[in-house]
Amino acid sequence: MPREVRFLLLMENYRYTEEMEVRDYECDLSGIVNNANYLHYLEHARHKFLNAVGISFVDWVAQGVHMVVVRIELDFLNSLRSGDRFVVGVNTERISRLRFGLLQDMYRLPDHHAILKAKVIATVINEEGRPVLPKTLESLLTD
Amino acid sequence: MPREVRFLLLMENYRYTEEMEVRDYECDLSGIVNNANYLHYLEHARHKFLNAVGISFVDWVAQGVHMVVVRIELDFLNSLRSGDRFVVGVNTERISRLRFGLLQDMYRLPDHHAILKAKVIATVINEEGRPVLPKTLESLLTD
Amino acid sequence: MPREVRFLLLMENYRYTEEMEVRDYECDLSGIVNNANYLHYLEHARHKFLNAVGISFVDWVAQGVHMVVVRIELDFLNSLRSGDRFVVGVNTERISRLRFGLLQDMYRLPDHHAILKAKVIATVINEEGRPVLPKTLESLLTD
Amino acid sequence: MPREVRFLLLMENYRYTEEMEVRDYECDLSGIVNNANYLHYLEHARHKFLNAVGISFVDWVAQGVHMVVVRIELDFLNSLRSGDRFVVGVNTERISRLRFGLLQDMYRLPDHHAILKAKVIATVINEEGRPVLPKTLESLLTD
Repeated sequence: MPREVRFLLLMENYRYTEEMEVRDYECDLSGIVNNANYLHYLEHARHKFLNAVGISFVDWVAQGVHMVVVRIELDFLNSLRSGDRFVVGVNTERISRLRFGLLQDMYRLPDHHAILKAKVIATVINEEGRPVLPKTLESLLTD
Repeated sequence: MPREVRFLLLMENYRYTEEMEVRDYECDLSGIVNNANYLHYLEHARHKFLNAVGISFVDWVAQGVHMVVVRIELDFLNSLRSGDRFVVGVNTERISRLRFGLLQDMYRLPDHHAILKAKVIATVINEEGRPVLPKTLESLLTD
Repeated sequence: MPREVRFLLLMENYRYTEEMEVRDYECDLSGIVNNANYLHYLEHARHKFLNAVGISFVDWVAQGVHMVVVRIELDFLNSLRSGDRFVVGVNTERISRLRFGLLQDMYRLPDHHAILKAKVIATVINEEGRPVLPKTLESLLTD
Repeated sequence: MPREVRFLLLMENYRYTEEMEVRDYECDLSGIVNNANYLHYLEHARHKFLNAVGISFVDWVAQGVHMVVVRIELDFLNSLRSGDRFVVGVNTERISRLRFGLLQDMYRLPDHHAILKAKVIATVINEEGRPVLPKTLESLLTD
């Protein structure tokens, strides 16, 4: 399949994509990105996605509202190395009445070699300490 | 159940335990440990466990042998906060001919409140780029 | 000079010492601890020292009081590697009416090989946004 | 001074500039970027600058050549917060026969509010363990 077509498919398949670049300090002594940094990349893409739909993690914290990650599944398919550019795609999924999933895939650029597949399951705890699903999030899960 | 008994159970249930303490820089603006740092804690406990049975991650890298994590499942049960002490317990499990699992649980100290359950599935790639299960690891999975 | 004597000198020379151990994820692709992690080590030792004299960074933040670092000087003398143990010694110094210095030295263990010398200059901003020097800190600088 | 003019001045004053954005995980419980992350930002900008003039940190490591930072001076002028964009400017300076300085300033965008001034003094250790100043670096210090 020619590269141009794959690129278009990728871009259309996700609700949100964020491009990033590996920084040298993110690589460990095995010469590749240290596993924990993939969680950093995923969190950053997730927060940017939520920002784009009007949800600010920082504002929520200031109001005593917390998005709480309850489970993460990570499939490591290939490693990123110093200088690699990559894209994180984000999709959403309803898990239960109060839980939602963020499906996040990572591809190296420009060849779209698959790097990682992640499923992040979260809920929201409001200022009274109760789990809720705010309307802004609700609407992301239905359309 | 009295605390003393729970403590003894905990200590006997794992092949290896590593005690650590949350450092302030590991907490993010929501006031709790940032998710990615749990992967750091798990990796450190894992490497210490492997060191204790004679496997050095660093020496392996120097010989071109790499332990490759292929999947991680994390269940976040509670959060750690600034100053919390905690223990990471490590157990092993055979997954397939070439894959093994490290079951890692995290408890806050001194109350042994459960913080996180993790399953880390890995394999080893030797200097010729082939997946192998070195004897030192093999013996950890059988007894 | 025999090692035992050096050890005694070291222990007596600092107001506070904190022992730590290099974790593999703190090393970068050059095989040694990445520079930024020395700031992490120094911050952790500093916060532990302040805790020991009754100052909690976290409690201060909760009250709107912030310790603000205004300048850091770091002399890198030698590198730490995977598995190295080390000690951070902390001393205090008055810089000006509202500024104080924390002199922090790092030595590898058990040989006390010098790793790093740091001077961290800080002040405190109170809940009204004004620089102050709380009495607890003041007393650290005079005796 | 109108913003456009300041922007042009900034861009002309540095040999190299790198734009970046604060990620939420880089902020600590005081709500601002944790100090150690400024060293990460500076290192990334430095490596990108050196890459742009043909020096690859990673390739050097593979050849046994190491750029060694011997001293860092950091003046913290203002804090960066979640979501802030910023630019790191890099200039060079000869310090001695075998040492060079990288002068790195950080400004918030789009208002060019000064955040940090840094002086990073480094040397290069060749594959035989001797300090050298490779020609590529030498030429950066003379014109």
